[in-house]
Amino acid sequence: MPVNLPLPLAETLQPIAGLQLGHAQAHIRKPNRNDVLLIQLAPNSSVAGVFTTNRFCAAPVQLCKSHLATAQGIRALVVNTGCANAGTGEQGLADAQATAAHVAKLLGCQPTQVLVFSTGVILENLPMDRLLPGITTAAKTMGQSSWLDAATAIMTTDTQPKASSMVLEACGGGRIAITGISKGAGMIRPNMATMLGFLATDAHIAQPVLNSWVQSLANASFNRITIDGDTSTNDSFIVMATGQSSAAPVLTGQEPHAQALYQALKSQAVALAQAIVRDGEGATKFISIVVEAAKTEEEAAQVAYAIAHSPLVKTAFFASDPNLGRILAAVGYAGIADLDSNQVQLFLGDVHVAKNGGRHPNYQEAQGQAVMQQSEITVRVQLGRGPCSTTVWTTDLSHDYVSINADYRS
Amino acid sequence: MPVNLPLPLAETLQPIAGLQLGHAQAHIRKPNRNDVLLIQLAPNSSVAGVFTTNRFCAAPVQLCKSHLATAQGIRALVVNTGCANAGTGEQGLADAQATAAHVAKLLGCQPTQVLVFSTGVILENLPMDRLLPGITTAAKTMGQSSWLDAATAIMTTDTQPKASSMVLEACGGGRIAITGISKGAGMIRPNMATMLGFLATDAHIAQPVLNSWVQSLANASFNRITIDGDTSTNDSFIVMATGQSSAAPVLTGQEPHAQALYQALKSQAVALAQAIVRDGEGATKFISIVVEAAKTEEEAAQVAYAIAHSPLVKTAFFASDPNLGRILAAVGYAGIADLDSNQVQLFLGDVHVAKNGGRHPNYQEAQGQAVMQQSEITVRVQLGRGPCSTTVWTTDLSHDYVSINADYRS
Repeated sequence: MPVNLPLPLAETLQPIAGLQLGHAQAHIRKPNRNDVLLIQLAPNSSVAGVFTTNRFCAAPVQLCKSHLATAQGIRALVVNTGCANAGTGEQGLADAQATAAHVAKLLGCQPTQVLVFSTGVILENLPMDRLLPGITTAAKTMGQSSWLDAATAIMTTDTQPKASSMVLEACGGGRIAITGISKGAGMIRPNMATMLGFLATDAHIAQPVLNSWVQSLANASFNRITIDGDTSTNDSFIVMATGQSSAAPVLTGQEPHAQALYQALKSQAVALAQAIVRDGEGATKFISIVVEAAKTEEEAAQVAYAIAHSPLVKTAFFASDPNLGRILAAVGYAGIADLDSNQVQLFLGDVHVAKNGGRHPNYQEAQGQAVMQQSEITVRVQLGRGPCSTTVWTTDLSHDYVSINADYRS
Repeated sequence: MPVNLPLPLAETLQPIAGLQLGHAQAHIRKPNRNDVLLIQLAPNSSVAGVFTTNRFCAAPVQLCKSHLATAQGIRALVVNTGCANAGTGEQGLADAQATAAHVAKLLGCQPTQVLVFSTGVILENLPMDRLLPGITTAAKTMGQSSWLDAATAIMTTDTQPKASSMVLEACGGGRIAITGISKGAGMIRPNMATMLGFLATDAHIAQPVLNSWVQSLANASFNRITIDGDTSTNDSFIVMATGQSSAAPVLTGQEPHAQALYQALKSQAVALAQAIVRDGEGATKFISIVVEAAKTEEEAAQVAYAIAHSPLVKTAFFASDPNLGRILAAVGYAGIADLDSNQVQLFLGDVHVAKNGGRHPNYQEAQGQAVMQQSEITVRVQLGRGPCSTTVWTTDLSHDYVSINADYRS
């Protein structure tokens, strides 16, 4: 069972002035489900994105990077599920371009003002004969879809839609709404690939500021989650700011309210990222891995990911088995060549398990057992090397993970 | 079901002149099984080892490194299963030293001439009150144990003993016997940790030559296998040469027969390493991942390990599902920043699946399906970057893997 939070309520998800949503059934892979989302943005919106580092980056990712670089002002985003349009070579790029051109014609903008996102099977071409009519249908419903509809239309094997929303009152002298949606339950799925995150606000954030914020927002959220360690060919995180709020604009990032707005965006990005982990394939536990007293944040992340990716650590969490030597072993092989294991402390929840690299003399297995049986667990490792820290969120590795990924196409 | 080769027959495992074996039940963790192995070497034997890179390296590993560095001539090796003596701090080192001292007294040598190996639970101390009497018993049986007894005595959750043996006739003007044993079914086990490999020959190989050979032997064998990517705290690979063969000695490595001897040792090391993968926890497939046309061997290994460690690739193999985009995705995130995905070729068995980074126009899923249903599968990736290649051996990820690692202590 996933460790999802309650389903978001449609009425709690704030509309964003200057942003309209439409969705449709294009029958790309499965019948009777919405699989196309269209987002239209008012002129002069700022849009910035962070994309997968996978060298097999999918055709739509290549197109998005190129269109964001032209800086003509993005006016629309289109998302399909069911087919990732990855590993598709020249045909894939042509299909992504044709999709952008189709949207541009429908909404009256340039193709370079359209971003295209795909998620689904790798190594298969987009069914353009079904996708384009689906987009036409979505355009007709433009403005009639809710954020919950949008979150639902981008799902693949997600067990529930993922959305988060908040309002900043009296921020920069006005009211700012922030709403985001995400999808994903594995970095890559059996057939349905990819993590996608879309975060929108009606605040006015100048393009250079948004460009600088988007990477740090991603680093604090979507770049700190892992389910299986498989980085998708299609991962994308997009931040949109329509500038329709009455709040004072953020033009340099140094304005008095800029930091509050950044922190609010970050809290929503973290919530959307954590929602992916909570719905992780086969997940029965939501695990926060906190690594402290590292020399650098990168080093802390390296250790946290070694723990988060260890199949032995993950199966121990699934079993609620305080087999904690596995965590120390992962710390040891994380690749810090000059780590002094005698300085390492390990805590499970509040229980001090390992002191100075060895078993804590007062540690009793029953204490560890009690923490392991919880569905939300914090592992804390102190490296004794410096002032830096980070947190990575992950899941356990269960029978259901194997079933979902092994049995999907059979 | 593991994809083990047939059980080695005791009579096919060559005795090594100058090397005697003893074993015993010390009841370290489980009743009614041999869990202590003692190896005695004739004076003037050469011994060299390669050990885990895990920064939490276990007490016995620290002791082995120190004793090999003193170069007094190793005379004995002692191995226990059931407890890894890792994450045990000062007490662990004292226990390893006491073990060496006990063996030294029994066999009449110096404690620094004894190597100590432990495998089993991490974060628990050795039960010295049972281990030392067990070693005494093993010493009394010295010379009465076969290599099959030895291979059995070092097993933990292995489903069968692992041993390999060969004879070189007319090599350096004499007959040279080579016999090795190994254990392991995961880099770390639920409670039973570690891969161990011991390779012995009666050839005369001078210590400096053996020192240089041992690392390249390990790189070509035990450093090219992975089951779960978890590098143990106790991994050890030891090569012993007693010098009792009538063959001409290898003093510089430049002798006419030295290369043949090296290749023979390598073939046995590879067989012992592959035996660990074949008995991998929950394994139903034996998978060879060949990466070719890389700039360096390290780069080839990096890509091969990314494929071998991907839970999505591994579950696809378990399902016999030719979901091959997962392999391309793993190639893409392997960390080669300047990889041109348009140069990448992917073969499954003899089937050309992806050509120049995209699906091969002639590829039919039925072809991939036919290969995936085999129990021994070769994946071949050509990077189109250079002349280097390597091979990594691994397993699939099955329900049994999760059961073995999640349910063991419950």
